[in-house]
Amino acid sequence: MTYCVALRLNAGLVMLSDTRTNAGVDDIAKFRKMFTWSVPGDRAFVLLTAGNLAITQSVISLLQERIDAADPNGNLFSAKSAYRMAELIGDAMREVQNRYGPGLAQMNESALSSIVLAAQLADQSPRLFLVYAAGNFIEATDDTPFFQIGSSKYGKPILDRVIEPDTTLDDGITAVLLSMDSTLRSDLTVGMPLDMAVIPSDSQDFSINRRIEADDPSYRALSEAWSVAIRDAFVKMREIPK
Amino acid sequence: MTYCVALRLNAGLVMLSDTRTNAGVDDIAKFRKMFTWSVPGDRAFVLLTAGNLAITQSVISLLQERIDAADPNGNLFSAKSAYRMAELIGDAMREVQNRYGPGLAQMNESALSSIVLAAQLADQSPRLFLVYAAGNFIEATDDTPFFQIGSSKYGKPILDRVIEPDTTLDDGITAVLLSMDSTLRSDLTVGMPLDMAVIPSDSQDFSINRRIEADDPSYRALSEAWSVAIRDAFVKMREIPK
Repeated sequence: MTYCVALRLNAGLVMLSDTRTNAGVDDIAKFRKMFTWSVPGDRAFVLLTAGNLAITQSVISLLQERIDAADPNGNLFSAKSAYRMAELIGDAMREVQNRYGPGLAQMNESALSSIVLAAQLADQSPRLFLVYAAGNFIEATDDTPFFQIGSSKYGKPILDRVIEPDTTLDDGITAVLLSMDSTLRSDLTVGMPLDMAVIPSDSQDFSINRRIEADDPSYRALSEAWSVAIRDAFVKMREIPK
Repeated sequence: MTYCVALRLNAGLVMLSDTRTNAGVDDIAKFRKMFTWSVPGDRAFVLLTAGNLAITQSVISLLQERIDAADPNGNLFSAKSAYRMAELIGDAMREVQNRYGPGLAQMNESALSSIVLAAQLADQSPRLFLVYAAGNFIEATDDTPFFQIGSSKYGKPILDRVIEPDTTLDDGITAVLLSMDSTLRSDLTVGMPLDMAVIPSDSQDFSINRRIEADDPSYRALSEAWSVAIRDAFVKMREIPK
């Protein structure tokens, strides 16, 4: 499985992903699911992937080849808007799905996969898209300013409670880390290390773009402080008559 | 969908269920999923049901008919142990599955269903069983002193964090209510009102056996206090460097 989460806040974009993949619970491996690009002064963007790994890796490779070739039919560096970038990702997804989908169906294997695009282009608002396996996509709005892909349920309650468009970047970072923490505790198919990226809304570069290892001291401090705070909050509930 | 949760604590048994059923999200209804019986001085027990409603209702009806007939082949009032009660529930489940399973398979409809048994018999420990659609079952132990059926993921993190065998009944009640609260917020197929039952371990009767309506003042007070406490806990995380 996988867990990736992305927030589209007024203050910028916050992304977090795990790195565990599994073909059955007895066959786990570590693969990056977050891919970042920046062209200083022009654009910074992130792709998060979930689902069939062969499919999503192929989509990422196709998109990278087209960037490298400065493909005149459109590529993620030349696209004039984040909407156009989502279209290009959807096109690559459909291309790969058309190539392998029928074979996977024959084997009764899932071709399901999804890709989140978080993009900040110069002089444009931060935008967040979720591209489905059919290449179609939706965009995050103020009503729902975040997307989750993969094992999303364990980590959703904290996001539902605290994330709003005007949440600060710092609170957004805390929220995605706690959302991941709940998921890691309950779902063995989601695992450390993590990849985190943050693009402030007035910037075309990353303020954070780093790997968080299992023994990362600040991650562990947050995880432990949250455990204590939840237990304290729980103890306070003893005062409420039931 | 459904959400039912049951705790097997040293201090007793705590059960909570919702009442929403749905055949598609455009066809929701209200059905009881918690069934309680007590024979003062002898036994008190609860069944919680999830899955195909026609299947679980039939199992409950069969079990009730056999109690009413004082069935000499065994019924839930005459069984000498909670283990034997779980066997009888499993037998009834297999009987109903054998009758309707093939027809449901033909229609491509799910016959999946599960039943939790929480039972306190005189001079015995409180015991908790989860009976599967095939009639086989598992029992809760000190390592995992709770079972959830239905939409279990949203409400699992809080249980993972606070439930241990020596958790008090009062804390157990708080925990299942908060677990339900998180589920209600994130999953529309789980809905109020709720049914709650508590059997203290030195008793063969219910200390609590009540319906909690949507406008229940104590439930609302807890839900609101928890929202505030989680937000306060979240704000405290600002002190942790990320």
